[in-house]
Amino acid sequence: MTASHIQHVSTIISAKWICPVRPINTTLEDHSIIIDQDRIVDIIETKNVASLYETDQHYQLHHHIVTPGLINAHTHAAMNLFRGFADDQPLHTWLNESIWPLEKKWVTPDFVHDGTLIACAEMLKSGITTFNEMYFYPESASRAIKQSGIRANIGLFVMEYPSNYANDGEDYLMKGLEARDRWRDEALITSSLAPHAPYSVSDKTLNQVLTYANQLNLTIHMHVHETEEEIKASLAEYQMRPLERLNRLGIVSPQFMAVHSVYLNHEDLTTLSKESASVIHCPTSNLKLGSGFADIAALQKHGINVCIGTDGSASNNKQDVLHDMQLASLLTKGLTKNPAMQDAKTSLEMVTINGAKALGLEDHIGSIEKGKYADLTVFDMDHISTLPMFDPMSHLVYAASREEVSHVWVNGLLQYEEGHLTSIDIKACKDIALRWQLKLKQNI
Amino acid sequence: MTASHIQHVSTIISAKWICPVRPINTTLEDHSIIIDQDRIVDIIETKNVASLYETDQHYQLHHHIVTPGLINAHTHAAMNLFRGFADDQPLHTWLNESIWPLEKKWVTPDFVHDGTLIACAEMLKSGITTFNEMYFYPESASRAIKQSGIRANIGLFVMEYPSNYANDGEDYLMKGLEARDRWRDEALITSSLAPHAPYSVSDKTLNQVLTYANQLNLTIHMHVHETEEEIKASLAEYQMRPLERLNRLGIVSPQFMAVHSVYLNHEDLTTLSKESASVIHCPTSNLKLGSGFADIAALQKHGINVCIGTDGSASNNKQDVLHDMQLASLLTKGLTKNPAMQDAKTSLEMVTINGAKALGLEDHIGSIEKGKYADLTVFDMDHISTLPMFDPMSHLVYAASREEVSHVWVNGLLQYEEGHLTSIDIKACKDIALRWQLKLKQNI
Repeated sequence: MTASHIQHVSTIISAKWICPVRPINTTLEDHSIIIDQDRIVDIIETKNVASLYETDQHYQLHHHIVTPGLINAHTHAAMNLFRGFADDQPLHTWLNESIWPLEKKWVTPDFVHDGTLIACAEMLKSGITTFNEMYFYPESASRAIKQSGIRANIGLFVMEYPSNYANDGEDYLMKGLEARDRWRDEALITSSLAPHAPYSVSDKTLNQVLTYANQLNLTIHMHVHETEEEIKASLAEYQMRPLERLNRLGIVSPQFMAVHSVYLNHEDLTTLSKESASVIHCPTSNLKLGSGFADIAALQKHGINVCIGTDGSASNNKQDVLHDMQLASLLTKGLTKNPAMQDAKTSLEMVTINGAKALGLEDHIGSIEKGKYADLTVFDMDHISTLPMFDPMSHLVYAASREEVSHVWVNGLLQYEEGHLTSIDIKACKDIALRWQLKLKQNI
Repeated sequence: MTASHIQHVSTIISAKWICPVRPINTTLEDHSIIIDQDRIVDIIETKNVASLYETDQHYQLHHHIVTPGLINAHTHAAMNLFRGFADDQPLHTWLNESIWPLEKKWVTPDFVHDGTLIACAEMLKSGITTFNEMYFYPESASRAIKQSGIRANIGLFVMEYPSNYANDGEDYLMKGLEARDRWRDEALITSSLAPHAPYSVSDKTLNQVLTYANQLNLTIHMHVHETEEEIKASLAEYQMRPLERLNRLGIVSPQFMAVHSVYLNHEDLTTLSKESASVIHCPTSNLKLGSGFADIAALQKHGINVCIGTDGSASNNKQDVLHDMQLASLLTKGLTKNPAMQDAKTSLEMVTINGAKALGLEDHIGSIEKGKYADLTVFDMDHISTLPMFDPMSHLVYAASREEVSHVWVNGLLQYEEGHLTSIDIKACKDIALRWQLKLKQNI
């Protein structure tokens, strides 16, 4: 082989370990990921790299694990600015006396931009390369997202109730679709329709949501069965459970993401399974708000795609999907009284390929495979809290924390390295956060 | 006031916020902790410091929270060397095919020294200043503990079954008491009697344990009611539940620490409450091993002192009691469906003053008060993941992670500062961990 056969590529990452997620349950040792532009073009043994590829950016990661970029499948990013404002409150007080009045007073396009930017910084540092967003003023969120270099699926938020942002179902929808027109050519942004919840969106609006989802080929992102109360209310108003109502309207489909799904009976499980919908499990939020325990073992038994979301920082209070994945695994083991349940490979799939599948991006992200976008998260395992190590994948799931995240690539670009973000000025973000802190404190 | 009235002290820590735990539910702003030798001698407003005290070591912590040093109320420190060796295994396989054979093959005085040293490094970095230890070869553990500068209560491990360390109840007891004689003059080490569990220790040995505990004024540290199986077995063998048996033997007292206590009926709760015993809650371990959910709300309703332990790294896999405290809080809110339960101040007490109380050290550690030992943990809250901040104590409990720990003082000495340990060589520890990794891997 002559030098002329050597291909010049953008980036080569030679890692001690790679957990590519596909093929299933694989850990590669001493392999390299070859990246050209935004794509993974090859995954080969490191000893073969020099004879095939050359680059100006070769990362030698001698005690690191590379995984697909983590996917946070549900959040309200801008709520980072409300983090810790209203902890330890009963749900009714939290919503009626804290969150909703706060939102009414403070949520503006600037608030959403600033809060989203701060959340993007936190998420990148936490190894998250893609997030699934739902909040007011999605156009403002999109500006922060573009700035940060992260990948996002932005929900076009819809409900019937008026807010600073829009007046009614129709108005939310129109504003959302208009916003989408401005980001639809962005490489890193996709869109969902995001009706808030069955109890806050009418049949009429849901029909419109479905029409647009079908016309524009968009996923639908919705809070579903978070509490027992919403099921009772639906039975009283519609004489059926929320999921049954959604299913009759045609909303439940492979494009449907049912966030929370804490309370599912046998019919609900059957519906989600039959329609190949995805469930977004947000365990920290469900516990912190006292909603309860989603039965992940039952979902998996029904073959339902389960992924993990942090939810917004007002109910978590961390944009750290690795932590939520770990919590999900612990809860499944505890609830089933079987420590073998939700094993490490299953947990890792939930925050990678399962998230990608829910977002309709399974062909593009969620695993380290040839042809996929180079969205990668690297964990430096040379720490006193991660040594010794016997099984890299298991250690990633049970011993590692976001503090071990050392590098993050999104779409082939290095966005985070050892404490430093490429596209976001952390110092400026902290100043912005402190300015909002000062403003919001006047509200207390 | 003249200069002659200014007292020279060892260390002054001027912090933006202090959560002293006592008085209850207090957050001091712009206060300073005055340390002389090993003790806290004063807590005053920072503006008054210059006129009263001078020091060569003045720490200005402008965006930090100082708490009492965290107390990890149950662990098997040396098991850090088994971390991640046997994840995702059913309990029976985990014990019989992994942990016990591993212990039989590998646990030696060197193993215990090395594993304990690594765990001490991890614990100090995690803000832990005191831990409650139970494992084989306590004398070897004590050597690592002395080296590390951490405070510990070492259990004199006792069971009937033979191990590399001892042959039977009598032998364990004698070896433990002999080991204690060698560390009893150490300022930072106290001792417990640590009978493993009701099912592994006979009445005869428990009677001896009680005699020594009374004679030597030692606490008793024991696994109790971790699984349903051990209760069934006790009913079959003794025609009573384990706690009833222990109570009849006189073991349950204010000096008794019941680790786990996952399965407690009304009589068990009444016994623990009446005898003023403490419960050590290890939520990660209970979930990871599929044991179940301890009912902390019921314990609190009965006025029982609850503190938090990580358990050993083979069933956690982190020596991070802050994380276990957060998990405990989430679980209590989820189980009671009440987000107001186990609020921030209660959680913080569990890992500070409650731990101190369980260890019989309430007069010396567990809060930031005049006259107590200067065991302090500092959290740097100037991070993108902890901004904005509205309530420091709540942020500490819900938003902070051990990565925010910036300084740790034990007994007046700075043992950890911004990634660096004073008394432990982290590089050497990592090498030791890698050597054991190599050895143990030959076993797979």
